[in-house]
Amino acid sequence: MSKKAIQDQWTEYGTMCWGCGRNNEHGLQIKSYWDGDETVATWHPQPYHLAFPGALNGGIIAALIDCHSTNTANAAANKAEGHELSSEIVRTYVTGSLFVKYLKPTPVDTPVTLRARVKEMKDQKVTVTCSLYSEGVECVTGEVVAVRVK
Amino acid sequence: MSKKAIQDQWTEYGTMCWGCGRNNEHGLQIKSYWDGDETVATWHPQPYHLAFPGALNGGIIAALIDCHSTNTANAAANKAEGHELSSEIVRTYVTGSLFVKYLKPTPVDTPVTLRARVKEMKDQKVTVTCSLYSEGVECVTGEVVAVRVK
Repeated sequence: MSKKAIQDQWTEYGTMCWGCGRNNEHGLQIKSYWDGDETVATWHPQPYHLAFPGALNGGIIAALIDCHSTNTANAAANKAEGHELSSEIVRTYVTGSLFVKYLKPTPVDTPVTLRARVKEMKDQKVTVTCSLYSEGVECVTGEVVAVRVK
Repeated sequence: MSKKAIQDQWTEYGTMCWGCGRNNEHGLQIKSYWDGDETVATWHPQPYHLAFPGALNGGIIAALIDCHSTNTANAAANKAEGHELSSEIVRTYVTGSLFVKYLKPTPVDTPVTLRARVKEMKDQKVTVTCSLYSEGVECVTGEVVAVRVK
C-alpha cells in the first residue's frame, strides 16, 4: 500500500473539498491509497451519519464513492503521464457523472472500506468503478466518470 | 405549494436521516414541498460545503438529490394509495440506485433549488427525475430509483 494518501499530494487549491480535503475541518476527510492497481480508503462513520436507525446514509455513501473515485482518476491519469499531483503541470479531472447502486443496507457503527480501479482512460475522461464494503461484505457499487478541466 | 414539508410528515423512525431528518442536528435538513405534480426544495449551502473554491461539493449535491427524490417517491406512492406518510400502513421506499450528472459547477454562496417529478411508478419501484438549479440555471440533473422495503 502506498505510504502517502492521494489527497495529501494535492497543492493547497485541492485541499478544501468537503469529502476529502485535509484542510476542511467540517468534512469527511477520506484518505485514498494505492494498493497495486486498486485504490483503498477506510473511513469511520459518525453516529449521526444515518439514513435510518443502524444504516449509513446513502448521500454520505455517494460522497465517499465520488471523492475516492475522482481522486483515483486524477492520480491514475497523472501517473500515466509521469506527473505528480503536486506538480504545477498536473491535469485536473472533476466528476462528470456518478452512479451508485445500493445492494444492501450499510451498518453505521463499523468502518467502511472503499476499493476502486480504473475501468477506462481516454484523453479527456477517466471511468472508475468503486465498491464499498462493511466487514468484507459488498454493500454498494458505483461508477464515476471523471472529466478533464482546463 | 404544499404547506407541510414531506419530511415533516414522517413518524419518528424516519426523522434521523442525515440528509433530511428534522431530528438530525448535524444533517442537511432539506425540506421538500409539493408544487403541482413536482416537488421543490430550496437549500442554503454552508461555506464549507466545497468541492474547490467557489463550487458546491458534488457529494453534497448527490445527497440532496437522493433525499429530495426518495421523499418524492415515498410521498407520491403513498398518495396514490390514499395513505399519509404519518400512517401506520405507510409503504416505505429506499434508494435502490442514484445517478447524478454534473452539467456545470454549482456556486456555493447562493441557495440551490431542487425540482423533482415521478417518471414511472410500479408496485415495487418508483423512478424520480430531479434537477438542481442555482439562480435559475440548471447545474445538475439526476435520477433515483426508489425500491419498496417490507
